[in-house]
Amino acid sequence: MKQIILNQFDMNTPGHIWPGFWRHPRDRMDYLDLAYWQSVAGIAERGLIDSIFFADVFGVYDVYGQSPEAALRAGTQVPINDPTLIIPSMAAATRHLGFGVTSNLSLEPPYLLARRLSTLDHLTKGRIAWNIVTGFLASAARGVGLETIQRHDDRYEVAEEYMDVLYQLWEGSWEDDAVVKDVATGLYTRPDRVHRVDHRGRHFRVDAIALTEPSPQRTPTLYQAGASTRGRAFSARHAETILISGHTKAIVAETVRDIRRQAQAFGRDPRDPKIVLGATIIAAPTTAEARDLYEDYRGHVDARGALTILAGWTGVDFSRYGLDEPIRHIDSPAAQSTLELLTIRSPDRVWTVRDLVAFEPIAGHGPFIVGSGAAVAEELIDWAAATDIDGFNFTRLVMPESLTAIVDLVVPELQSRGAFKRAYAEGTLRRKLQGHDRLPSSHPAGRFQRRRAGAA
Amino acid sequence: MKQIILNQFDMNTPGHIWPGFWRHPRDRMDYLDLAYWQSVAGIAERGLIDSIFFADVFGVYDVYGQSPEAALRAGTQVPINDPTLIIPSMAAATRHLGFGVTSNLSLEPPYLLARRLSTLDHLTKGRIAWNIVTGFLASAARGVGLETIQRHDDRYEVAEEYMDVLYQLWEGSWEDDAVVKDVATGLYTRPDRVHRVDHRGRHFRVDAIALTEPSPQRTPTLYQAGASTRGRAFSARHAETILISGHTKAIVAETVRDIRRQAQAFGRDPRDPKIVLGATIIAAPTTAEARDLYEDYRGHVDARGALTILAGWTGVDFSRYGLDEPIRHIDSPAAQSTLELLTIRSPDRVWTVRDLVAFEPIAGHGPFIVGSGAAVAEELIDWAAATDIDGFNFTRLVMPESLTAIVDLVVPELQSRGAFKRAYAEGTLRRKLQGHDRLPSSHPAGRFQRRRAGAA
Repeated sequence: MKQIILNQFDMNTPGHIWPGFWRHPRDRMDYLDLAYWQSVAGIAERGLIDSIFFADVFGVYDVYGQSPEAALRAGTQVPINDPTLIIPSMAAATRHLGFGVTSNLSLEPPYLLARRLSTLDHLTKGRIAWNIVTGFLASAARGVGLETIQRHDDRYEVAEEYMDVLYQLWEGSWEDDAVVKDVATGLYTRPDRVHRVDHRGRHFRVDAIALTEPSPQRTPTLYQAGASTRGRAFSARHAETILISGHTKAIVAETVRDIRRQAQAFGRDPRDPKIVLGATIIAAPTTAEARDLYEDYRGHVDARGALTILAGWTGVDFSRYGLDEPIRHIDSPAAQSTLELLTIRSPDRVWTVRDLVAFEPIAGHGPFIVGSGAAVAEELIDWAAATDIDGFNFTRLVMPESLTAIVDLVVPELQSRGAFKRAYAEGTLRRKLQGHDRLPSSHPAGRFQRRRAGAA
Repeated sequence: MKQIILNQFDMNTPGHIWPGFWRHPRDRMDYLDLAYWQSVAGIAERGLIDSIFFADVFGVYDVYGQSPEAALRAGTQVPINDPTLIIPSMAAATRHLGFGVTSNLSLEPPYLLARRLSTLDHLTKGRIAWNIVTGFLASAARGVGLETIQRHDDRYEVAEEYMDVLYQLWEGSWEDDAVVKDVATGLYTRPDRVHRVDHRGRHFRVDAIALTEPSPQRTPTLYQAGASTRGRAFSARHAETILISGHTKAIVAETVRDIRRQAQAFGRDPRDPKIVLGATIIAAPTTAEARDLYEDYRGHVDARGALTILAGWTGVDFSRYGLDEPIRHIDSPAAQSTLELLTIRSPDRVWTVRDLVAFEPIAGHGPFIVGSGAAVAEELIDWAAATDIDGFNFTRLVMPESLTAIVDLVVPELQSRGAFKRAYAEGTLRRKLQGHDRLPSSHPAGRFQRRRAGAA
């Protein structure tokens, strides 16, 4: 049976996808504390979770009410700390758990980002994945002194060139046998095996060697979540794990077919990208208890905080509408396509603003799976079979209890059904997910890889 | 008696100030391994070391031979990994040890650096110091696509504005009582206590709130090491710990007088900046054994690797000169002033190129203190008394044995003479060093601090 991938989705901030759980009496989340993060890593590794994936955002959600006020009140992704800095200590407390992290390539030169991600790959012994984000919050642009964010399509053009620079630094600058550490001759690195990157592109110029020696994966495992047409194409070309959303099996299956078709069109094995669906899981010893837990959690969701996020995603200032207004009446042209995406696939339902944040499945959030460990496991297996996805990305809820419930109740039921590993595979995150440590030569990074005569 | 500050000086790279020790049979340095770094932190904390200070460089030394070849061969500060990423795991393994880290403000927008350093201050519970560097390697500029580095004085003008932006983000954006986490009302942050930074300067524009809540120190403890006239003035205005070099007591005493005078001219208490001298310490149970150890270490210094660094500092391509050439013959006008600084204070000695890297004191390296624990302690106390410095910054040698020797042999002798603390003070790094958690209102950051009516 296909082995399902399980990722935990998290963020270095008080409120993530569903803000408000910091008010729950059993919530122990303390994003400022390393011991907290190390304990989360330990729980995840005990459950053989493939990776914890940290979202990030470099700005505040200020579309709702045209100010950051609502986000600040609810703790909705603000304050937001740097996620890269918590990963090494979580790595020190674990041996196999992978770590995905979002870094936005719009805000800093590739030469800086390359070094930071290579350092993470070294320190985690090859357990790092980078979620490629090209940025969308106007507030981030204002933070770094840019007048406006780039047009969407331009952003992806810049991103393509940015990736080329990174691939040259990661794959082409240092050969595998560059570092020899030969005590007898005092030779640390063979200079003839280190190559200068000389890139003169439209958006970037780099004339330098990479600063880091080859890390276990060289290029970190690549995650991407672009849902637009252009973003989908970018994913299909570059990404090894693609994060998707969708709240019905039919919609998700269609998305998966499209991604695999596009990957194939780029010369990749259509099964090569691992497709992972965002999902909200609530497990308890019995399904009745799980339903009670669902109601309990639902009562702690901060609806305005959640609308703040949705306002940022769609560009619609939901503060201007009553919670019970049907959203078809919202006449912001910029937002129509996103709202269509969220709702049009349920044409027989009249959606209100409140429905969008009712702790129920909409397209942006993916399915809600609530039940006993066995019931959840069956449902996950069913989703995977029906949609051809490879796994799930679990939304952070009340921590750590919602993760502990997955580990203790759902994982054993998946294992007993043959749908989840009983031990981690050895090696890097890419080896665990794809069977090899380095990107294959068929990947866009491959043309920058150096092959010695006689090398495999 | 004055309590001496002790810092360990380190770098996330195979070869730091004295390259070549990776070849020493007892060297256990493994810069890619978190467990190694955690063990170093543990040794330092056992010895009540005030902080480990990580240098950084964002480029390669390529003046020697006009290429990175010599640096690569010796492992001289290349490969070089991001130092910020090893600090949190070292913090997780300790409780009091401080962590200084160099970040170059020339390469990224202040909005990014502000969040990263605030995150470090949170995760270390207020134990972080930032060493302000404005950059000097042309290779770094080429890495990030800049044609040339800025002129030296312009760099400091940009740095002054950059600091203003950081101070506004750190000191002025979030009030101390902004985060309330009030479960009853669901209020995480009071929006009226969070203020937008609206900075429109010559070099930077920022229109955003800080992304992080106030960290224990807000502005991290500020280190600086500028030795030029302009750099000295910048230090005297901003820095709380100033790192200096100098190989004779007379020279160091003069430097200290000048710094304290300049600090006073900026309205600061002249004793406010802690002045820390770079020094190479070799301690052993007996002075005879220490001298043997010195010869042993000296035999493992990579002379060409060390010249590579000196070439970067001075701009002189030492590959063009024989090792025994008197350096007065070197006719690079750009380098004269630095070479003067290194040597002119010993006018009766004819310096050769070899002398500059002979593992002996020159101005750029500071004193060598070799002896039994008692002898080294006496000499440190004597230096502190004669020069008015506040402490020392120990050059990394063979690791961890050279640090362990300081901790086990020198620290107890300093303690028994009343010159070194017997326990860490509680609280943040700034509290330990300066007696308070936050920058005082007299500091240049003070004008961005908000004081509520009735607040202390």
